[in-house]
Formats: sequence, structure tokens, C-alpha cells
Amino acid sequence: MKFVIQRDQLIASVQDVMKAISSRTAIPILTGMKIDVKQHGITLTGSDSDISIESYIPAEEDGIVHVENIEEGSIVLQAKYFPDIVRKLPENTVEIEADSNLKVTIRSGKAEFNLNGQDAEEYPHLPKLQTDSSFKINTDLLKSLIKQTVFAISTMETRPILTGVNLKLENKNLTFTATDSHRLASREIPVTDATIEFQSVVVPGKSLNELNKILDDTEESVEISVTNNQILFRTKHLYFLSRLLDGTYPETSRLIPEQSKTVIHANTKDLLHTVDRASLLAKEERNNVVKLATNNNQFLEITSNSPEIGRVAEEIAVQAIEGEELKISFSSKYMMDALKAIENDEVKIEFTGAMRPFIIRPADGEPILQLILPVRTY
Amino acid sequence: MKFVIQRDQLIASVQDVMKAISSRTAIPILTGMKIDVKQHGITLTGSDSDISIESYIPAEEDGIVHVENIEEGSIVLQAKYFPDIVRKLPENTVEIEADSNLKVTIRSGKAEFNLNGQDAEEYPHLPKLQTDSSFKINTDLLKSLIKQTVFAISTMETRPILTGVNLKLENKNLTFTATDSHRLASREIPVTDATIEFQSVVVPGKSLNELNKILDDTEESVEISVTNNQILFRTKHLYFLSRLLDGTYPETSRLIPEQSKTVIHANTKDLLHTVDRASLLAKEERNNVVKLATNNNQFLEITSNSPEIGRVAEEIAVQAIEGEELKISFSSKYMMDALKAIENDEVKIEFTGAMRPFIIRPADGEPILQLILPVRTY
Repeated sequence: MKFVIQRDQLIASVQDVMKAISSRTAIPILTGMKIDVKQHGITLTGSDSDISIESYIPAEEDGIVHVENIEEGSIVLQAKYFPDIVRKLPENTVEIEADSNLKVTIRSGKAEFNLNGQDAEEYPHLPKLQTDSSFKINTDLLKSLIKQTVFAISTMETRPILTGVNLKLENKNLTFTATDSHRLASREIPVTDATIEFQSVVVPGKSLNELNKILDDTEESVEISVTNNQILFRTKHLYFLSRLLDGTYPETSRLIPEQSKTVIHANTKDLLHTVDRASLLAKEERNNVVKLATNNNQFLEITSNSPEIGRVAEEIAVQAIEGEELKISFSSKYMMDALKAIENDEVKIEFTGAMRPFIIRPADGEPILQLILPVRTY
Repeated sequence: MKFVIQRDQLIASVQDVMKAISSRTAIPILTGMKIDVKQHGITLTGSDSDISIESYIPAEEDGIVHVENIEEGSIVLQAKYFPDIVRKLPENTVEIEADSNLKVTIRSGKAEFNLNGQDAEEYPHLPKLQTDSSFKINTDLLKSLIKQTVFAISTMETRPILTGVNLKLENKNLTFTATDSHRLASREIPVTDATIEFQSVVVPGKSLNELNKILDDTEESVEISVTNNQILFRTKHLYFLSRLLDGTYPETSRLIPEQSKTVIHANTKDLLHTVDRASLLAKEERNNVVKLATNNNQFLEITSNSPEIGRVAEEIAVQAIEGEELKISFSSKYMMDALKAIENDEVKIEFTGAMRPFIIRPADGEPILQLILPVRTY
């Protein structure tokens, strides 16, 4: 096995694949990175058995040669040292060679690394998805869907299903929903080319976070395929496979109140900054809880009071307050997460009383929904 | 006590003073920040009893008004919340007021914080330095002196005196020296206006690191005063006081070999990067040790070999090798620290055999000296 590759190309692929490699794994060879060399290009593979990532570097693309002097073969390299070695090599090109004794030589300029490789035959075969049904969405849209929902997953293992994001594809609408049972985040987008439907796909939050890190913010499409225990995200040169969580995702639609008693229209950033300031004294003693009170349908007062530390109060002018006067307490952290997930300049918040969940949506009607359960203090 | 201040001015001073404040201190009031308000300006004070920092904001400076509506007085505020509050306030000006019950109000725009203050009378009086003898050096030069030596202090408490940097002022020359007994870093600069001399001033490395963070890279001068247990660094608006370490600093001059058997002239960055690459496989198993060998007075070979992981070798062309052939092993970390501390593009390295300390200096003759003890492996 032998090839000469552009260092920058190799660095980018190695970084992506490293996202799936853990130094703590029950299968020792999975601490390594597999390199498959073919005449048409190089494939790097990493896996922690929950997530598997393959990155492909074509030998030539759009008339640009990325890989040369190719002799086909495969090897598994210790992933612990490989990224640093590649990053610090002196020249723009790198030669990687493996002999029949699994000795790997990495050369660049006058620098030469000799590493002990492992037999690629011993690397587990990645499960190949047996499905023809898939759909496509734009990469930047997929990244938004992840960022606007994944923060709301549970970090507690008491209900493992809540550590994932629920994906539904029904009536040509794709919905991402996450909840930790104290708050909920969801977003829906149309998928015009969808020929399939599914309801109970739950992808581990960790997988989606890693996927979000790897994907570039482009309009190129991602192809998504689902089986009953795996999901595959595929771009031009990337293959990202994650296991799904077992179990039934709770029915969340009944949580969402259908009517409201108080409706507030506010500037998203102003409200975010006011809540942020009110939370400064609420962190420890008060478990992040702040209070919101409407005042004569003119402005909101947001306050927090920690007897040991002090009190903070701020009035904020809002576009409109309709309906009943309201006093409500909630987690400032949940509120800030929700407001950060809304891209619109203006938000609409619908309350149904101090003890009922309330809903935050962008004012432009985009189907993003953030739901927060209040805290009982008034 | 009351004043209105420009927020950016306050943020900068608070950040400086926070460097001296620790949440773990035997004296509870030292977890707070003292604010002294006079008609001419505001003084913020923080201290962990080892380091004390005062930052002064004049009411007016160069025709620009920083502080207004001044009512004199003092208060101690809980430092844990104060920096975040100031940083996140909505407007460019901040009003701070304390009443006779030690209640502090911080106002900016519509935001109002009410905090419990503490009586400034209970804040310990900072020791005032009883000395008239001081000298001045440029701030950027002081920062260089610190950065080029402080990394070589010991982090072990077995010989506490080595956790500090030794300052000597003799014959109008100021020398900073640090050693952990495996390597040594020193630099000397002329101080033309020095009317004092001292030899055994040892400043804790931690103090110098904090001072380096606070000082801006300017050519303005720092006034330095020394007593037998304290050192004061004073700029226009800053007062940085540190205790000195007790004990006698070891005589280090005898460590420095007076003659050499092999002399190498090399490009600083090339050598640094080569040693960095060679160290990649040496980190765990080999305790960072790499080998250097001269080759026919033409180039150096730098290698590292970890049986479990692999081997790395690199030839590096150097400007000149004079004297005996040499094979020597040393800590790559020490070598990289030393090379980073040398600002010149070219270094001169003087060896006196594989078992003797060697010296790295900038090729331009600047009196910076880095000494490293080799490791016995050949």
C-alpha cells in the first residue's frame, strides 16, 4: 500500500473521521483509523460502534490531483498519534506506505515516521444500510435543524430515549423534536422529494452534535437513509452512520397548549440579554430561576432575588402584550437556549397561566417551537 | 458613596484586579473587591495576600471624563458576580451607589442590581512599601524578561525557592534567572538609571505570570521597588504588589560551562519544528526524550524511538557545526521551551559532551541564556 497525498486534504479528512474514534472502546482495533487505498481514491474510516464515519478523498476531482503514486492496499493506524503527525509535517505533500509486515512509513520533506500498523482485515466491517429509500435536504438546513433542537435533549440516563432527537417524516414534512421533560424544542421543514415516511426514529444527541461539527455550512444536499436500527447521512465524500436509540419516543403533541391567555411580542435579542442579566445572581442559590411579570400591558419586568447575594430587576419594553396580566417563573437557562435557537428578530410567546407550559415561536411563522415548563414559585 | 463611570473603563480595571482575587482564601473579605471613591478618581483593590493589585481610574484624564457624579466613600463587593454584571450591563455608563446599610445598587439603562456589600473598614490594609529606591524599565521589556524565564521555574514544592524567578540588579544590569534544576533560563538587560543593587530577590512565578497578563505591550515604563519581603511594580494607573519567596536562591553561575566541544548554528524555527515532530511519539513512553546526532559536520539527525509506537527521524540542515561529533539525548519539551524563548531567527548551541549541560543562545549575542541538562541514554 502506498500513496502520495496533499497534506491539507488529508488533515481535513482525518479531523472528520477522528470525531468517531474514542480511546475508550471495548474493541481495541477501533482506537485506530482504517486507511483503504484504491486507484480511484483513499477512504479513511473511524468508528466507536455507535457512530461510524468514512471520509473519501478522490485521486482526482475537477481536474485537481489530490492523490498520486497509488499502490492499492489497506492498513489500520493508531489514531492517537496520526492527526498530530499529519498536522505537523513539514511539506505540503505526504507519502504514506505500508509493507507486508504492517510497518507504516510516513514521509514528508526530510521527516520520516515509522509506525506499527494493524491488519485491516481485523477491522470490523461497517454495517451497510440495506435500504433504497432515502430523502435529501440541504446541509445548512440540516445543521439548523440540529442546532435548534439538540440542546433540549436529556443528559440523564434515567430515560435513555430522551437523550436522542426524534425524527419524523410524515406528509412530506420532516420534524426534529427534543425534550428533557422540562422543555421541548422542535422544528418542521418540508421535504418535497420524500417517498418514505417514519415516526419513531430517535438519533442519539451525541451523533447529531458530531455530525453538525463535521458538516460545512453549504447548500449542498445530504442524503438521509433510515432502517429500523440505523441512520445514514451521506454527502459527496462523507458517510456518517449512527445507531438509533431503542424504545418509543413519547407523544409530545399533547404537551402543546392549544389556546393562550397572554401573548407577548418581543425583540429576541433584547429579551435574551435581559434574561441573561437577571440570571447572573440566580445561578447557584436559585437554580437559574427568574420571574417575569407583565405590567399594565405596557412592559415586562424580569427579576431575580437571592437573599444571600442580592436582587436584580429590569424593565423591558416589548412590541405588544395581549390578554391577561401574568406573573410566571422559569429557568433562565431554558429561556436563553430557546431564544438563541430562534433565528428571527422577533418572538411571539404564548402563556396559558403561571402553572402551564408556555410556547416561544419566531414571529415570522416559521414552524420552530420552543416549549418551557414554568417553575412553581408565585 | 456614588459614581457614574464609563463601562469599558470599569471592565478593564475589574479584569486586572480580579487576577489577584481568589475564591479560596482564609480571609473571607478577600473574596471581595474593594472600591474606593474619591473626587479625583476610583481605586479598585483585590488581594489574595500573596499578590495585591490596585487599579486606578482617574475622574478625568487628557480632557476625557471617565467618572462623574462622585460622592466619596468605600465599599467591598462580592467579586464572584461583579465582573459578569459589569460586562453584561446594557448601556455604556454605569451608576454605582452604596448606602449606609452597605446596600449597593448598580444601574445601567433599565437594569438595576441590588447587592449586599461589606464594610470597607474590614478590608485589610495593604502593606505600603517603605522604600525610596526604585528603578524603571519599559513595560514591553519587562514582559519579555518574564516570558523568557518564568517557564523554567519548578512546579514542585520540594524546593519552594525554585518556584520563583531570581532577580538580580548589579552593576546596572538586571538579570532574571529561573531553574527547576533540570534546565535554566536567564536574561540580562542594562538598567541605566539604577541607583540600587540587590541579589537575592525571588518573585513567585505565579505573581510574574499574573503581572505579564495585566501589563500591556507598551513602551511606557514600569517602576520597580524592592524591600526585603516585597516587590512593587507600578505603572501609571496600576499598583502590583507581590510577596517575595523566603530563602537563598542557589548559585547558578557555576552550572554554566565555560568552554565547549561542539558548536551548532541553526535556524531557530526549523530546529523547533523538527524537535516538535520528533517529540510526537516520545510523549508517554519516552518521557519526551529525543536524540540529536551530528553527521559529518554537515547536518543534524533528530530521532525518537518508542518500541511500542514507532520511530521518527529527521535530518535538518544547519548553518554550521564546529568541533567534535556528538550524540546527545534531551527533553524535547525543555528544548522547545528554550527555542521559543529566543526571539532571534538563529541560535547558537554549545555542547561540552553528551553528559554535560548545553547552552542555547540567540546568534545575535543578546544576553539570553537557556541551559538544558541532557538525559543519559547513549
